[in-house]
Amino acid sequence: MDWARPVNPMTTLLTNAWILTLDDELTQHDPGWIQIDGTTITALGSGTPPSITNAEIIDCGGDIVMPGMVNTHCHMGMSVFRGLAEDVDDRLYRYILPLERKFVTAEMVRVGSTLAAVELIQGGVTTVADMYYFETEVADVCDRAGLRAIVGQTLADFDPPDHKNFDVGFARVEQLVDAYRDHPLVTPSIAPHAPYSTGRAVMERIALWSSDHPNVPVQMHLAESTLEVEWALKTHNQSTVAVTRDAGLLKPNLICAHCLQLDDADITMMSEAQVCVVTNPRSNGKAGRGIAPVERLRNAGLPVGIGSDGAMSGNTLDLFSQFAPVSMFAKLLGGSRKPLPAVDVIRMATIEGARTLSLNLKTGSLEAGKQADLIRVSLAAPRLHPIYDPYSMLVFAALPTDVTHSMVAGRWLMRDRHVETLDPVQATRDAIQIATMFKAEMQRIDQTH
Amino acid sequence: MDWARPVNPMTTLLTNAWILTLDDELTQHDPGWIQIDGTTITALGSGTPPSITNAEIIDCGGDIVMPGMVNTHCHMGMSVFRGLAEDVDDRLYRYILPLERKFVTAEMVRVGSTLAAVELIQGGVTTVADMYYFETEVADVCDRAGLRAIVGQTLADFDPPDHKNFDVGFARVEQLVDAYRDHPLVTPSIAPHAPYSTGRAVMERIALWSSDHPNVPVQMHLAESTLEVEWALKTHNQSTVAVTRDAGLLKPNLICAHCLQLDDADITMMSEAQVCVVTNPRSNGKAGRGIAPVERLRNAGLPVGIGSDGAMSGNTLDLFSQFAPVSMFAKLLGGSRKPLPAVDVIRMATIEGARTLSLNLKTGSLEAGKQADLIRVSLAAPRLHPIYDPYSMLVFAALPTDVTHSMVAGRWLMRDRHVETLDPVQATRDAIQIATMFKAEMQRIDQTH
Ligand SMILES: [Zn+2]
Ligand SMILES: [Zn+2]
Repeated sequence: MDWARPVNPMTTLLTNAWILTLDDELTQHDPGWIQIDGTTITALGSGTPPSITNAEIIDCGGDIVMPGMVNTHCHMGMSVFRGLAEDVDDRLYRYILPLERKFVTAEMVRVGSTLAAVELIQGGVTTVADMYYFETEVADVCDRAGLRAIVGQTLADFDPPDHKNFDVGFARVEQLVDAYRDHPLVTPSIAPHAPYSTGRAVMERIALWSSDHPNVPVQMHLAESTLEVEWALKTHNQSTVAVTRDAGLLKPNLICAHCLQLDDADITMMSEAQVCVVTNPRSNGKAGRGIAPVERLRNAGLPVGIGSDGAMSGNTLDLFSQFAPVSMFAKLLGGSRKPLPAVDVIRMATIEGARTLSLNLKTGSLEAGKQADLIRVSLAAPRLHPIYDPYSMLVFAALPTDVTHSMVAGRWLMRDRHVETLDPVQATRDAIQIATMFKAEMQRIDQTH
Repeated sequence: MDWARPVNPMTTLLTNAWILTLDDELTQHDPGWIQIDGTTITALGSGTPPSITNAEIIDCGGDIVMPGMVNTHCHMGMSVFRGLAEDVDDRLYRYILPLERKFVTAEMVRVGSTLAAVELIQGGVTTVADMYYFETEVADVCDRAGLRAIVGQTLADFDPPDHKNFDVGFARVEQLVDAYRDHPLVTPSIAPHAPYSTGRAVMERIALWSSDHPNVPVQMHLAESTLEVEWALKTHNQSTVAVTRDAGLLKPNLICAHCLQLDDADITMMSEAQVCVVTNPRSNGKAGRGIAPVERLRNAGLPVGIGSDGAMSGNTLDLFSQFAPVSMFAKLLGGSRKPLPAVDVIRMATIEGARTLSLNLKTGSLEAGKQADLIRVSLAAPRLHPIYDPYSMLVFAALPTDVTHSMVAGRWLMRDRHVETLDPVQATRDAIQIATMFKAEMQRIDQTH
């Protein structure tokens, strides 16, 4: 398929910005400028910007310009479930699985993913790693939204809405890979749901398939709950990480979400295999599941990205709302202010998140030659001041609503808080309509219980 | 002094609102209306609003209208320290105490408190409990801002900037009480800093003074750190709560902030004395100090309010940024989704917070006869939808920037996001100027270390 996108023929020059590059030296330019040609950052620096004819010059008024954020674990389609049955312990089996079986269709995934894409753009996310059902719909929404994305077709054994069995699931994966293999922004992915819901035999089949498709990332929930640990011990007499390793899945292209229930041996296995890790602090904290050992994983040399999880679990999809939790959890584990400094949180949200998705050569930092994936963060709000350190300000005071502009591969997705690629009002309206249907079904469920 | 305030001669009628009353039955009116005359809510209900001549009618377009929030522990003057030396473990002795001794003046407290008042109003807080130095300045700022406030003159033994010794401190308390005793919104308070920094003898003196001034609330940091627990054990061979009780301070007018390091006996003592408790989740989490036993305290019958602490510790002063932490911490302690449901978080932020400050007959819920302290929360943002439960939406998806209107005692402090009583731009500018001075001093400190 031809994925030709509108290319801006003019040079774009952002001037008078407080640029956080997030390069290896954490270079800041204040005031600084960035030159963008086509999809790419061609130059940036401090002081006087170059004089370019035929350039669109945008004065950023001293605002922060930084890499667009990387949400490394999401279920965009689930936005229509946001906050459903909050605080109810058995909500998964009581409401969510029945609702998914009955209502999750390609159309519902499209509606949920569109609402999610609006929220991601508005909240400063420019790259998202997603896994859900009917994933070609998610891919199409991301293409239209202009987001950089890794889209994973989920495989699971609990009668999910789009595959009665794994053969059908694999056919969906093949279809997704065929359709999007050459897309400049949307990377197809295969997503075994979790070890316990995929099973050792199918994990081996996926590992074999993956060897034939080394450029297709694998996404999986791993070591999320004590139930999963118990399953692995009972069924295979080893840890869930060891089951995954022995099935052949523990490889550098594996993106592991959650990673809560790990012992030292698990972390060593993961480190030796050079897998990538995602932490989902709000989702885990809200479920009372525990605190991921983020510092230990990073100290073991593993890149750790930040993920929102789906809106049903984490409620919002921006990364700002994950910053305080990820930071506080590390400090509570360490019993001090020192663990996981604010700058490391912002690294995880940008360049380290990109590394988690093997996209770090393209995105995650502002450097000449990289793709122009960036956001502008307004400093107008009194609550942001004074600013002693911009990373502290971003982690503990800034809000998704401070993001005013978002660009992916040189294309504006949002300007002055106006989303250019999608219709936020229509997206919200469509999601509310589906929720009305869900509410009626929940009433029916409550009456029959 | 005459504290006459501008009174709106017209009836105000808010219509077409989704009203969360936070009364005992958690009554909602959707769509609903509220009638306000002078300082007071005179009527409210569902359906068609009454027909009133000479009323200003405001159509709320389906937005949430709820009680203004109660921030039960703050140090408004410290806003100029926001995020200073984040992640530095010895920042208190290295930077903060030296900066306070050198720079904290009445003028600085005024600047910091003004910035804080702007942020509180913008973030939906209508009542604040504050303790700091030069507290008559804070009182004056709250009076001008139109905020309902409890303002506590702090007493401490570490050579604080406004009292060389406790006699001077007590004189400041007396001055504050004399000046504000008849103020309709600003209640003077006495605020021993903490047991270890006040000392048993002075705590007894404060308890005696308090018996003569039963309507003056007492605010204190209590059981905040293991160091404090060790001090109490070493110096008095008992818990810090027992020291406080034996000094005569554990009474219903005592507002205890933090309350992290408590055993069962402490909670029993606090429950018997019917003290009031404030939890400061962001401040405690960021310091890696631990998680307050909020559920145990509430189950013991103690009202627990939510406090931001100062911007140096918690960075922001709205309560939205405290909601996810307070909720997640309770769920992590309980190992389940069930503890502290979202509705209880909103209770703590409103009526229960008001009870913590003994202001629950005046504010904290929307009921006829109570003061008109309310906020309007816009539902325009896609990230808020769909809404299965408004309390879940407020706790896990809403942001302080969703607050569009704020009213205290019938007076608009903010309309359509425009602060009516203060100048946000000037407040921010003044704070940045002080920060410039602080930064220079921090460089000096770093060079001489
Ligand atoms: Zn997930
Ligand atoms: Zn405090």
